[in-house]
Amino acid sequence: MAGSMKALRFHSAKDLRVESVPVPELLPGQVKVKPEWCGICGSDLHEYLTGPILTPAVGKPHRLTGCTVPLIMGHEFAGEVVELGPGVQPGRLKVGMKVCIEPTLFDDTCPPCLDRRRNCCEKGGFFGLSGWGGGFSEYACLQEKVVHPLPDNVSTEIGALVEPLAVAWHAVKASDHSPDQSALVVGAGPIGLAVLFCLLAKGCRQILISEVSPQRIKHALDIAASHPDVEIKVLDPTKEDVVAKAKELCSQGNQGPNTAYDCAGVQKSIETAIGAVRKGGLVCNVSVWEKPATIDVNALVFSEKKLMGVACYCEGDFQEVIEAISTGKIRNPEKLITARVALEDAVTNGFEALMKSREHVKILVHP
Amino acid sequence: MAGSMKALRFHSAKDLRVESVPVPELLPGQVKVKPEWCGICGSDLHEYLTGPILTPAVGKPHRLTGCTVPLIMGHEFAGEVVELGPGVQPGRLKVGMKVCIEPTLFDDTCPPCLDRRRNCCEKGGFFGLSGWGGGFSEYACLQEKVVHPLPDNVSTEIGALVEPLAVAWHAVKASDHSPDQSALVVGAGPIGLAVLFCLLAKGCRQILISEVSPQRIKHALDIAASHPDVEIKVLDPTKEDVVAKAKELCSQGNQGPNTAYDCAGVQKSIETAIGAVRKGGLVCNVSVWEKPATIDVNALVFSEKKLMGVACYCEGDFQEVIEAISTGKIRNPEKLITARVALEDAVTNGFEALMKSREHVKILVHP
Ligand SMILES: NC(=O)c1ccc[n+]([C@@H]2O[C@H](COP(=O)([O-])OP(=O)(O)OC[C@H]3O[C@@H](n4cnc5c(N)ncnc54)[C@H](O)[C@@H]3O)[C@@H](O)[C@H]2O)c1
Ligand SMILES: NC(=O)c1ccc[n+]([C@@H]2O[C@H](COP(=O)([O-])OP(=O)(O)OC[C@H]3O[C@@H](n4cnc5c(N)ncnc54)[C@H](O)[C@@H]3O)[C@@H](O)[C@H]2O)c1
Ligand SMILES: [Zn+2]
Ligand SMILES: [Zn+2]
Repeated sequence: MAGSMKALRFHSAKDLRVESVPVPELLPGQVKVKPEWCGICGSDLHEYLTGPILTPAVGKPHRLTGCTVPLIMGHEFAGEVVELGPGVQPGRLKVGMKVCIEPTLFDDTCPPCLDRRRNCCEKGGFFGLSGWGGGFSEYACLQEKVVHPLPDNVSTEIGALVEPLAVAWHAVKASDHSPDQSALVVGAGPIGLAVLFCLLAKGCRQILISEVSPQRIKHALDIAASHPDVEIKVLDPTKEDVVAKAKELCSQGNQGPNTAYDCAGVQKSIETAIGAVRKGGLVCNVSVWEKPATIDVNALVFSEKKLMGVACYCEGDFQEVIEAISTGKIRNPEKLITARVALEDAVTNGFEALMKSREHVKILVHP
Repeated sequence: MAGSMKALRFHSAKDLRVESVPVPELLPGQVKVKPEWCGICGSDLHEYLTGPILTPAVGKPHRLTGCTVPLIMGHEFAGEVVELGPGVQPGRLKVGMKVCIEPTLFDDTCPPCLDRRRNCCEKGGFFGLSGWGGGFSEYACLQEKVVHPLPDNVSTEIGALVEPLAVAWHAVKASDHSPDQSALVVGAGPIGLAVLFCLLAKGCRQILISEVSPQRIKHALDIAASHPDVEIKVLDPTKEDVVAKAKELCSQGNQGPNTAYDCAGVQKSIETAIGAVRKGGLVCNVSVWEKPATIDVNALVFSEKKLMGVACYCEGDFQEVIEAISTGKIRNPEKLITARVALEDAVTNGFEALMKSREHVKILVHP
């Protein structure tokens, strides 16, 4: 299996190329995977538009991988195990098995890693953004422990959704939101909708979603329609006062939702989130910001509100999401997929299509 | 006991007057108290300097009391019970008893109040800032339940410190800080030092304090000296990098203190607090802000940090502080008191003295 393979490599802004590159060497403790489906993420788009941002520029090798651009992209993927490297005992993983990949890179030795916070690793990065390979390619070699088996009833298409769902799962878990509480999700992009799926999986009965784009509102309403037993309200801030409406709708015990998830990352969204949660409530910020926010700290003080940030996922999240999909707690996650494209068409029908319209949520690439 | 009494009334900025006013009428369910000591708080100073801020201006009656300026100030006080109003059964409270006052005003009927968050009451205010009387006067009439008996070994001087200590107690409790964890207190004014006392009472073994003023640093060092068994380090941001130092000093398990308390309320202090706490750590903002803060939300995201606001105190805090003082868990709180003045001298030797120098921490007025 030596030789070359096709891969989508990021060179610089607006310069993504399908190229022939060497098949990566399988090192001890690693597993070689053949990616079948790999999602395009918001961060991939950002790199494409104005990168290198997260990708290491020439002359600035990544602190963990030592790599620089050009490098293979793609970190939301699932595929098949094609080879076990030296030292990997067949058992949990076997050749031919369907698996999905937890793409965070960490060093396992820094203080946060030792504190079971590998998502806050001081040297951390992403497979598919920081080097060592990526999911938009024919083969990828990964450490055994980040390769998660998929049960029979979970396809590799759905497997490619585990990563964004794990971000949302981790956020909902970290926020300590309980099923009897009400939630507001601000922003119904892939991440906001993934949060919606995870809240539903948790058994939440009252969920509000705020979204400005009519296309994304449609997607949220579609998911809501498939969960008729739950009170899901989609609010449009261009047409109504989301803060006032949220206080009115979630009026049990105190006014406003218990938890708000900011999945938009703009000044207006965090103001909505902070304004809407009840006194004593929590704003869980999932979004990555392009610039600092202006926060009225007194609004946190006099109402005893909390604001927390959450990063990716950690020990247990991938396994829990896979189980939640397999057992039907996360129901119809394929609703997140709006297109499937070949590797050759990834730039035009994937990256460019996502930039053109909010019609799309998740586009999967078939390498 | 009808007739008139002396009281310190706030009229407008820089206009505080010792005046003769009617003794307040004792209503059913109320207790008449003769204040013996009443502390001057930062918010009192603010009113004096640029008020009305919290005090209700003429034409803008307070939503709960209906009062406007001029009104009697003083909300950190203790004294003696002189009369029980109609309907108050002698028992918990008796004439002649030493008591301290919990000065928050709340309506007991709004959603947050019903949710046991009377500190977030939608109509809330303060006795001594919002009307109905204040501690800088010869008599004050208060609802039975906000009057707390002081044990024999707690004087009314110390009783006047219970209010600021309760703010700190509530903050430490709300932050869920545990004794084996490390803490950073930013700002060593009365509130920051009260947080220090409460952390010590909780049995914390590692506490850092950051303060810019040499006089306040001296006060912090003095309290530290009386607790030689605890690792208390006072850091000066004008001379060292507090964030780097905090990470270095608190390196057990992860880097930086578990919790930081912002008791200064300026851009630099919150940056220090957010920067210093470890990954997964909490910033508990106790301060009241004069303007919005600029927050790098990504710093919360990638390190999974939390920022929370805390307001005053709630059910149980006053009783717990009184007990902690009585049992010696809060040790030598009188170190907070830097001067005692008569009501007649309150403006010159109290308010003006506090504005002139950070030499002072808490000045008590004897009405
Ligand atoms: N914390 C993590 O580990 C992690 C992981 C992945 C993505 N993210 C971040 O999560 C965020 C969301 O990701 P995404 O892929 O869904 O992004 P997206 O841009 O596709 O979705 C954001 C949505 O928010 C909507 N929106 C914008 N302003 C709004 C407002 N004021 N009110 C309501 N809705 C508003 C937009 O219309 C859009 O649909 C991004 O910031 C992304 O970087 C974080
Ligand atoms: N949350 C509540 O319920 C509540 C109750 C009472 C007071 N407060 C607030 O608590 C805050 C503190 O009150 P206080 O009476 O102690 O105020 P204070 O002004 O006396 O003390 C603040 C201290 O912070 C120091 N400081 C300023 N910038 C600093 C920096 N960058 N680093 C380190 N130290 C710095 C100052 O030198 C000063 O000693 C105020 O904002 C006050 O309004 C809140
Ligand atoms: Zn690490
Ligand atoms: Zn109330």
